[in-house]
Amino acid sequence: MDTAVFEQHESEIRGYCRNYPTVFASASNARQVDEDGTSYIDFFAGAGVLNFGHNNPRMKEALIDFISNDGVAHSLDTYTTTKRDFVQKFQDVILAPRGMDHRMQFMGPTGSNAVEAAMKLARRATGRREIVAFSHGFHGMTLGSLAATANHAFRQWAGVPLDNIVRLPFETAPGGDTAIAEYREALLDTSSGLTAPAAFLLEPIQAEGGVNVASAAWLRSVQDLAREVGALVIFDDIQAGIGRTGSFFSFDGMGLDPDIITLAKGLGGFGTPIAMNLNKPEVDRHWSPGAHTGTFRGQGMSFVAGTVALDYFTDDAFGKQVTAKGQVMRDRLEQIAAAHPERGWEVRGKGMMQALDTLEGAFAKKVQDECFARGLLIGPCGQDGRVVKLIPPLTIPEDDLAAGLDILAEAIDAAAAAIPAAKDADLEGAR
Amino acid sequence: MDTAVFEQHESEIRGYCRNYPTVFASASNARQVDEDGTSYIDFFAGAGVLNFGHNNPRMKEALIDFISNDGVAHSLDTYTTTKRDFVQKFQDVILAPRGMDHRMQFMGPTGSNAVEAAMKLARRATGRREIVAFSHGFHGMTLGSLAATANHAFRQWAGVPLDNIVRLPFETAPGGDTAIAEYREALLDTSSGLTAPAAFLLEPIQAEGGVNVASAAWLRSVQDLAREVGALVIFDDIQAGIGRTGSFFSFDGMGLDPDIITLAKGLGGFGTPIAMNLNKPEVDRHWSPGAHTGTFRGQGMSFVAGTVALDYFTDDAFGKQVTAKGQVMRDRLEQIAAAHPERGWEVRGKGMMQALDTLEGAFAKKVQDECFARGLLIGPCGQDGRVVKLIPPLTIPEDDLAAGLDILAEAIDAAAAAIPAAKDADLEGAR
Amino acid sequence: MDTAVFEQHESEIRGYCRNYPTVFASASNARQVDEDGTSYIDFFAGAGVLNFGHNNPRMKEALIDFISNDGVAHSLDTYTTTKRDFVQKFQDVILAPRGMDHRMQFMGPTGSNAVEAAMKLARRATGRREIVAFSHGFHGMTLGSLAATANHAFRQWAGVPLDNIVRLPFETAPGGDTAIAEYREALLDTSSGLTAPAAFLLEPIQAEGGVNVASAAWLRSVQDLAREVGALVIFDDIQAGIGRTGSFFSFDGMGLDPDIITLAKGLGGFGTPIAMNLNKPEVDRHWSPGAHTGTFRGQGMSFVAGTVALDYFTDDAFGKQVTAKGQVMRDRLEQIAAAHPERGWEVRGKGMMQALDTLEGAFAKKVQDECFARGLLIGPCGQDGRVVKLIPPLTIPEDDLAAGLDILAEAIDAAAAAIPAAKDADLEGAR
Amino acid sequence: MDTAVFEQHESEIRGYCRNYPTVFASASNARQVDEDGTSYIDFFAGAGVLNFGHNNPRMKEALIDFISNDGVAHSLDTYTTTKRDFVQKFQDVILAPRGMDHRMQFMGPTGSNAVEAAMKLARRATGRREIVAFSHGFHGMTLGSLAATANHAFRQWAGVPLDNIVRLPFETAPGGDTAIAEYREALLDTSSGLTAPAAFLLEPIQAEGGVNVASAAWLRSVQDLAREVGALVIFDDIQAGIGRTGSFFSFDGMGLDPDIITLAKGLGGFGTPIAMNLNKPEVDRHWSPGAHTGTFRGQGMSFVAGTVALDYFTDDAFGKQVTAKGQVMRDRLEQIAAAHPERGWEVRGKGMMQALDTLEGAFAKKVQDECFARGLLIGPCGQDGRVVKLIPPLTIPEDDLAAGLDILAEAIDAAAAAIPAAKDADLEGAR
Repeated sequence: MDTAVFEQHESEIRGYCRNYPTVFASASNARQVDEDGTSYIDFFAGAGVLNFGHNNPRMKEALIDFISNDGVAHSLDTYTTTKRDFVQKFQDVILAPRGMDHRMQFMGPTGSNAVEAAMKLARRATGRREIVAFSHGFHGMTLGSLAATANHAFRQWAGVPLDNIVRLPFETAPGGDTAIAEYREALLDTSSGLTAPAAFLLEPIQAEGGVNVASAAWLRSVQDLAREVGALVIFDDIQAGIGRTGSFFSFDGMGLDPDIITLAKGLGGFGTPIAMNLNKPEVDRHWSPGAHTGTFRGQGMSFVAGTVALDYFTDDAFGKQVTAKGQVMRDRLEQIAAAHPERGWEVRGKGMMQALDTLEGAFAKKVQDECFARGLLIGPCGQDGRVVKLIPPLTIPEDDLAAGLDILAEAIDAAAAAIPAAKDADLEGAR
Repeated sequence: MDTAVFEQHESEIRGYCRNYPTVFASASNARQVDEDGTSYIDFFAGAGVLNFGHNNPRMKEALIDFISNDGVAHSLDTYTTTKRDFVQKFQDVILAPRGMDHRMQFMGPTGSNAVEAAMKLARRATGRREIVAFSHGFHGMTLGSLAATANHAFRQWAGVPLDNIVRLPFETAPGGDTAIAEYREALLDTSSGLTAPAAFLLEPIQAEGGVNVASAAWLRSVQDLAREVGALVIFDDIQAGIGRTGSFFSFDGMGLDPDIITLAKGLGGFGTPIAMNLNKPEVDRHWSPGAHTGTFRGQGMSFVAGTVALDYFTDDAFGKQVTAKGQVMRDRLEQIAAAHPERGWEVRGKGMMQALDTLEGAFAKKVQDECFARGLLIGPCGQDGRVVKLIPPLTIPEDDLAAGLDILAEAIDAAAAAIPAAKDADLEGAR
Repeated sequence: MDTAVFEQHESEIRGYCRNYPTVFASASNARQVDEDGTSYIDFFAGAGVLNFGHNNPRMKEALIDFISNDGVAHSLDTYTTTKRDFVQKFQDVILAPRGMDHRMQFMGPTGSNAVEAAMKLARRATGRREIVAFSHGFHGMTLGSLAATANHAFRQWAGVPLDNIVRLPFETAPGGDTAIAEYREALLDTSSGLTAPAAFLLEPIQAEGGVNVASAAWLRSVQDLAREVGALVIFDDIQAGIGRTGSFFSFDGMGLDPDIITLAKGLGGFGTPIAMNLNKPEVDRHWSPGAHTGTFRGQGMSFVAGTVALDYFTDDAFGKQVTAKGQVMRDRLEQIAAAHPERGWEVRGKGMMQALDTLEGAFAKKVQDECFARGLLIGPCGQDGRVVKLIPPLTIPEDDLAAGLDILAEAIDAAAAAIPAAKDADLEGAR
Repeated sequence: MDTAVFEQHESEIRGYCRNYPTVFASASNARQVDEDGTSYIDFFAGAGVLNFGHNNPRMKEALIDFISNDGVAHSLDTYTTTKRDFVQKFQDVILAPRGMDHRMQFMGPTGSNAVEAAMKLARRATGRREIVAFSHGFHGMTLGSLAATANHAFRQWAGVPLDNIVRLPFETAPGGDTAIAEYREALLDTSSGLTAPAAFLLEPIQAEGGVNVASAAWLRSVQDLAREVGALVIFDDIQAGIGRTGSFFSFDGMGLDPDIITLAKGLGGFGTPIAMNLNKPEVDRHWSPGAHTGTFRGQGMSFVAGTVALDYFTDDAFGKQVTAKGQVMRDRLEQIAAAHPERGWEVRGKGMMQALDTLEGAFAKKVQDECFARGLLIGPCGQDGRVVKLIPPLTIPEDDLAAGLDILAEAIDAAAAAIPAAKDADLEGAR
């Protein structure tokens, strides 16, 4: 295993390679194999991108066919046959069955770009400046989306003030239960110092923020307030969408009707980059042609693999599998938490995004290391990285899932043996 | 040709499809073919991405091989064998021969992301806030990079103030010849209202801004001032780099030594997205792991095709071809301009980025339409879109290049026949 | 009464003259007389400036003596004998008895300037940017202080974003009871999107904001949090200080220890402009000479009259009178409110700042008009101007006070006769 | 001389007292006397406030009369007889003869407040955000006016970014001759990164900035560009106005027509605080009543003394005296500069604001100290305080003027003896 070339020539900013100190050579479904032949079970899925597994066979075939036949790999926003297939299928499989008439907007293929575009559109459509974002929210790294991101570890790198955002606590954060009602009262009060925002930007399920699952009731209260004050609702479903929670959108079935939905990560199917916003027509019409461009906004391979991915959503069989596997994950995490009652751990999640909040960043880091040593890849998240998040490919074989959960249980035991339980008082703030 | 699905379901923001009203089905080197079988010569190269042609055969082979063998398509910033190959080869082929010890930083695969990362790093490294950007500069669409972008057509969509930028005229703009010297005097004057910036951010050749070519002397004056006042020099070589001007960097051979270089577009070789900054070690060390992340920052296919692309730079044969073809383009444009002396057109460019400044946006638009009708794809740029920019694949066959130039000449004649020459006085400001 | 010259030549911005449509010619203690000889009882005291009455006899004498003897009327921050007298007496009468070692800072003679200086000092002393300000707070009209002011009617005139402020609800506003605790939790959470502020800026009693009286416990909770997170406490005592509430500072006797106190309005005694901050030495040392200047920061007449004013605070006789008169005001307002139980009015205040919250701006405006017609000057305040605020000179004769309260009662009856009580439901939000 | 009370209890920010280390007890016309009986000739006039001398006899009389008769000392913006007298006389003596129909707006009595109000009005009237301000400009210390102020020594204290300003070089600064023309070209270029500003804010003669006198031609070029791009012209005549240059406005007789003029300092006549903007009616109508308030915006004593001051402008006798005395000052400074040709000093000014640019801050400081030791008060200004500025009361007796100039000459000789002339090369940048 030779990593010297990275250490000598790559930037100090490189991160995950420090957690997984090996060199990967191949990958298939929920397995990654390093150049020494060690196989790892993948409970991380490339930060929630690889919902359909590494090197999904049907996508491989489609991609090889596409390349072999000189498909248009890069098209900006010119029309191509592969893009038309994708748009038509997304319309048929996702939007039409839900009675949604949102318009699809493509941009530079990063989630951050999708969020930036949504913020621009909301500001233009309302003529307002401020956007409400929530504690523990994660929306990206570029200056507009970073302003909406809550984590100080990322925000401190802006180097300039991150303005034009109103920050409210997410439902699951202290004060989150009353914040929307209080904010409403403040907006009605001309002496509150606050005025109506352009939009409410939020993840129905906060992934990077620690797997915080908003209730339908709270999401509706946000939507109701937005409607009342003439603001838009932007749902960032970049990590929790594309089937992760058992349905295509994380908020399906809750009676919600967001004005803008941002998608990316899993949408391209194969790890192939794409980002797409869904804009209601009455909002979308505020755009002018070329108002928000991006060189890589027409990726043929992403359309091809993404079109294959949509096959998973033509009926509810896949969703049921996700729900069933998610329940397996949940049960196991509950069992693990129950085995360590003195730790005060909490299990949270929905579908195949499940998490154990260990309350301590150092503990979760230890779990990650113990997992890696045993052949399992996981990625902590949340405040100080204290939450062990499990987001395997949705297509993970049941035996890999079971094996991975076994490793996780061992790793947690090893971590618990190494790190004594904190005194209750020390965790007061964390709970 | 069926475009209804786009018109019904895609966002109003779609742009290039309005200029090229057809549906492309395949592409090869400098040719794109639509679904009706019409073949177009490509003088646009996907906005400067496809330097090595559509579906470059060697890259096709490498990509199919990579996919067939379950290569790691998506890796974030974990180590992979394909990434190692790319980093090693970039070091060997590009950096080492130039005596450069810059570190390679990968981020979300858009040029905008690269610029945002560079701005963050410059602000962190210097502890300063303002960055000098130039008139006619184009650096991206996200809030940080958009602040540096000069074009009002893009800036107006921010919806919030675009601050923390000091704007100077580019060398070729009015006042550009004296601006650096005057800015220097202002920085030395404690009552000027200005203080030293974090960085000077510029394109050595402004592509979108109208193909404005800075002189080596002016670029050195910028670099000298930066050194004098403790600011960094950031060269945005996203469109002009990767061989476009006859050498890998657009500023090769000028004795320049930028602190940060942003690259994207052509770097992935096949239209496969990638963005990479080159940071001097003493600047790069200011990063902490994970300080600027991006889900798609480890694209296996971009590393694979990008590694193939680097083969073009192992000796100077390719560069000589680019220079020779560039001269053909230049000669033809000069000839065209000479045929219409009453129009006052200017020919500008370097290598295979050559342009005809028609001084009038409506004229250039007409040329674009006439070209499309004759089977040639071009993209205007610059103030009001008045500059006809030619950026064919560097690998374009000589006969396609000649045929394209013939079409261009015809199209310009047709446009000139349709649009009378403006009175001299009306163009006063444009010249 | 000739007002044409004003209507023709003064700006449209003039305000109070529209409420009191006459031309005043002279004034004495709590009486103003217009040029037609009509005498008005003054329950407004020049917006809380004339705590010691119009043309306070002792001050008149001192001023005439000062002018007659060629005293230094305008001195910037050079030393003068009159300024020395003022500083020494303020030290002896106000600071020393309270064990305070704050330094006196003089600036341009407006409250807004005092607040701007306090904000600068807090930001410099902490190296932080954001300052916490509260709903219904009023701190001034210049861009820094206006950012802290809550009222939208004033904020909308900025013309630029008002940033660098964190807005929390004041104790008496919705959510105010839990806001400090929740803000504390957010500051402890590195993913809340918030970081520690430079200061908490607040009025212990909000005057313009509607006579909202903070409890000692709440003020202490603010101070405790400030200490915990390394932020400063700035008390804006511009309207409520200088004896208005029965002691010199509005927060005397609460065990509070603010880092900076802003004073102005009544401090000059005679209506003569002055502004002064009291800075703790360890904060004050962050200033450099001349860091925040202001041409009129050394007003001889303000020092002279202000020194006379301090005589009122050498023992507690004056404070007891204020408390006693305040109780008379309070009792009468309670009686008035009790006479109209269907209106749901609330009486609030402390010392000789007492108020009746009528819940309706139009009602309070009507009361103001009815008072003026009967020879009483009052000024509404609070959200939509719905609060009838009484702030007569502290030196008002008891019979003038009684006569004024009689007029007020009549005026309120007249207003109540003219404006029917709102349905309970309509006032839901206002309560 | 006892200064301990200041040193112990006043803020560290105190400034001028460090330059004039004594305690002043009285003052008359151009003389200040300290408590030890030492008399100083005043060439500083309270930073340009005391144009009519300390304790102007006619103003003394009027003020004593006003106080004795219980005039309304403090009136906010209610109507008073004294305010009416002032408004009528200003209209009759200043505006009407010039054919000006500007409206008079009163605000908090500081120049900074006047500038803040002007900036608000310009932004409101145009719906634009940015205001052009100039190098070496001084406009105040509050956050809005400070953003327009150029001097870094003041700007660094903001603690927050000072945005929404476009900075251009003043006519007399490097690049100042071409800046307006180049800025015009940039505004016409949609890719310059600049858009049309709300206003151009400038001092026709920069006082604090170093006595930089703009030419009529340059001022007209600014005004022409403003008109062309729909921006307002704001002249800050706070220090150079009110007769200082030989006519009431510093820009009289130049054919200029500013939209807003800010006045303060000398306007109150006696050192009594006042600030007033003159707004063209079509601009002024954008104000709503109470949009920009300020407690001390109705100062009876300032109206009384200010009305007396206007007597100086009823004919041109006073202006001729100012011009004549100014010539005496100018001649003497030229003579002084000529006596030290190796120093490269420059004499600048207009009317009775005359200055010697010594090019070195330390030299000017030495001159100030030597003057003080000899009984003359002066105040350096400009970059690093290198400019010796002379602004005696306009009413200074001729013998005091002559005596003061004699002291100045001696002081300069003493300074020159103490500080050797810098090498030419060292002063390269300063010239």
